[in-house]
Amino acid sequence: MNSANSIESIFHPRSIAVIGASEDEQKLSSSFLGSLLAAEFEGELYAVNAKGEKSFGIKIYPSLNDIPGPVDHVIISIPAEVIPSIIDDCVAKGVKTAHIFSSGFSESGTERGRQLEELIVRKAVEGGIRLIGPNCIGIYCPAARVPLCGMPSVGESGTVSFLSQSGGNAERLCDMARKRGVKFNKGISFGNAADVNALDILGYYAVDPETKTIGGYLEGVRDGEKLFQLLKDTSREKPVVIWKGGQSSVGVETAASHTGSLAGSSEVWTAALKQSGVVKVDSLEELADTLLAFQDMQPTAGKRAVVVAVTAGSGGISVAAADAFSDVGLEMLPIRGETKEKLDTFVPAAGAILRNPLDISVAGGNPDMLRKILEAIDSDPYTDFLAVYFNVDSALRYYWQARGLSPIEAVFAEFKKKATKPFVVILQPTGNEDDRAAMETNLARMGIPVYHTVERAGKAIANFTQYWEYRHGLSEA
Amino acid sequence: MNSANSIESIFHPRSIAVIGASEDEQKLSSSFLGSLLAAEFEGELYAVNAKGEKSFGIKIYPSLNDIPGPVDHVIISIPAEVIPSIIDDCVAKGVKTAHIFSSGFSESGTERGRQLEELIVRKAVEGGIRLIGPNCIGIYCPAARVPLCGMPSVGESGTVSFLSQSGGNAERLCDMARKRGVKFNKGISFGNAADVNALDILGYYAVDPETKTIGGYLEGVRDGEKLFQLLKDTSREKPVVIWKGGQSSVGVETAASHTGSLAGSSEVWTAALKQSGVVKVDSLEELADTLLAFQDMQPTAGKRAVVVAVTAGSGGISVAAADAFSDVGLEMLPIRGETKEKLDTFVPAAGAILRNPLDISVAGGNPDMLRKILEAIDSDPYTDFLAVYFNVDSALRYYWQARGLSPIEAVFAEFKKKATKPFVVILQPTGNEDDRAAMETNLARMGIPVYHTVERAGKAIANFTQYWEYRHGLSEA
Repeated sequence: MNSANSIESIFHPRSIAVIGASEDEQKLSSSFLGSLLAAEFEGELYAVNAKGEKSFGIKIYPSLNDIPGPVDHVIISIPAEVIPSIIDDCVAKGVKTAHIFSSGFSESGTERGRQLEELIVRKAVEGGIRLIGPNCIGIYCPAARVPLCGMPSVGESGTVSFLSQSGGNAERLCDMARKRGVKFNKGISFGNAADVNALDILGYYAVDPETKTIGGYLEGVRDGEKLFQLLKDTSREKPVVIWKGGQSSVGVETAASHTGSLAGSSEVWTAALKQSGVVKVDSLEELADTLLAFQDMQPTAGKRAVVVAVTAGSGGISVAAADAFSDVGLEMLPIRGETKEKLDTFVPAAGAILRNPLDISVAGGNPDMLRKILEAIDSDPYTDFLAVYFNVDSALRYYWQARGLSPIEAVFAEFKKKATKPFVVILQPTGNEDDRAAMETNLARMGIPVYHTVERAGKAIANFTQYWEYRHGLSEA
Repeated sequence: MNSANSIESIFHPRSIAVIGASEDEQKLSSSFLGSLLAAEFEGELYAVNAKGEKSFGIKIYPSLNDIPGPVDHVIISIPAEVIPSIIDDCVAKGVKTAHIFSSGFSESGTERGRQLEELIVRKAVEGGIRLIGPNCIGIYCPAARVPLCGMPSVGESGTVSFLSQSGGNAERLCDMARKRGVKFNKGISFGNAADVNALDILGYYAVDPETKTIGGYLEGVRDGEKLFQLLKDTSREKPVVIWKGGQSSVGVETAASHTGSLAGSSEVWTAALKQSGVVKVDSLEELADTLLAFQDMQPTAGKRAVVVAVTAGSGGISVAAADAFSDVGLEMLPIRGETKEKLDTFVPAAGAILRNPLDISVAGGNPDMLRKILEAIDSDPYTDFLAVYFNVDSALRYYWQARGLSPIEAVFAEFKKKATKPFVVILQPTGNEDDRAAMETNLARMGIPVYHTVERAGKAIANFTQYWEYRHGLSEA
């Protein structure tokens, strides 16, 4: 079995045993079992603990060996000192993959922790088991109905796969990005990376036909040269977006105590990621924003943006959009020629400024005008992509109070089907989050990427076009 | 009457007439009347229109002159060409201030627009009227129950006053910052600044005893030298936070067509604002974030931060916080000495990393431990301020599912009363926005500034300490 195959099987266990699941369902060690049940994992599910009768209604077995059927995957959440003997049990039982949630290994900085980590890896490797962690929250695979640790649902399966050295950041990414409409194919938090590491996962995602975009949170790796070669090979085929934690000197020390990583200098990483064609991002939000762009937008290396601001009081936001987009290297050419003439025929002069950004307050209350504007820009030969700023609060206040925003959403739905160029919508949170979030959810379902500020939209689009420019450069070379 | 007095009276009209309010209550021109009624403006309120009987149940007068009582303030929302004759009516009626919402003046870039603007200013000045705008949404004063254009409530009165060249940005700031717990004292959107301009407003806010912090969105001014002198004088007394729109070349052009401003080069503004002791911010979010810090935190020029991450999966966010805080020049010294010893007595070694950031997952489920940690850091001699990262989703999932977060909120409430140092809470939006927003609202009511990401918290705190460092430098000199 080659490495990619052994990783593939990690995500599709037919049976899982949660070692450490207890009668106290509030305990962190029980949460894996609870969330596998809530997410309706379709394989066999077992609980193991030295004591106790049932957890979430499932019989607790005193040991792995007592389980009648085969066990593909175990989730281990018990004190570190006990884990070596449990790995022996796993080998005896024929377990294929073991995910160790527990900490107390190399990340502790103690000699004992390092010894324990070496011991469990040796036992696992000799016994033919792939080890995930320790000190991590393990695997996520919507198609197999395996939820990320503690999450009560798997979400819709999609084309974005992620890897994360941090469990907390994996969980936050999953929570936040799913809400934004990102559909994950697979995910993994691999903590100390004692066995399965960033290279294994990236190598697998690189060849996995279901994975179209890769997102990652990394704190450091042992073999930087290999990693960057792999990233370079991978990003020739599909976009790789990396958030690198531990860029400051305090961050480096924190990363060391977090996952036992040698974080490396910020300058080295930045240069190496750039040379590898990787899209480097600097926060969780930017990671989610950028994955969303890759998921939903058709490729373009063009940087010529048109921004359309279509709600009352669009002047100030037009200035902000011009600043934010220019700041990240996007171009904003004036609207001209036939497109300008076309717009002049149906956009009233009062309350509209037909530059770029197009400041057309009245279109927020006029779905037909909005539709015609979008179509005119889509067919403009000097435009590569389109961003629409829509203020839900002011649109509801001035135009749609009693009626709701479905006429506007219908315009976006229709345009999404017809559009020949990528487009995004910017819905800024202000006072009325419920209506804004509902519109975001509706647009996300149509496959329209929604951003929360002009600055974040600009950054995500710039990251996106930068990658396609890199790919374009490769094919020219 | 000196200039500050004439500006003071702008915010406290005893009677308002809305010129252009119509029977069609959905029309933008009617929204001023609707929102004054919804916000329960306590003075006399009149509607004026050449035709129509009633608007929002209020009698429509055919002209200003037909109104029986005196009129302090008018809001004008009719086509530009008609406005000069309305200003004549205002003079005849003894109106004190006129706010012109309508556009079609100098910002249009036409000769006719410029002429009209000159005409109305001349008429107003000769007639003793202060003119706000044109092309703006006017005044906001919670104490006088005057809402910002179209907004149905005034919010609680506080200590932060703002000025904005853009109506849209004023509205967005007001919407967003109020939701975050910023309490405004006064606000004004002054558009083209044909008469009342940034200098007038700033000069008034500088001496207004009710205004403790000033926030502003500016696109450009006619007399830069005077402005920067005034900013310098003002920021010796109270913090001034400025978002400057039109920093890119496209942004400059957009600003010109938006409010007819000469935006000036980005470099000149940045240098001049810095020399004036002004806190310069680069987005609407950063403006709101920074105003919140000034409103709620006791002054400190110290940059030594301690971050406490107290929910499951805090390792990754600790790395991110270390990076984000270091990136903006905040210092993160290791926890040491007596404070470290104190923490060691009650924080369990497993699942806690007692560095800085303090990564104490278990405290998210243990209010008593959280309280003792906060108190220990507050009395640490090497710490200037404290930031607590709390993940609402994971806290609810692992600890508080059935019980809710009130025990944690109670710890923050108690600590806010006792704390000798400034502190902020970071509540990152992930999947469960309702519970997160509810906790944010509760903490905001306690006067605790809440930020949405470690990056934004770091930036706001850095802006805040930078100002107090500037003030400290002045007093030393």
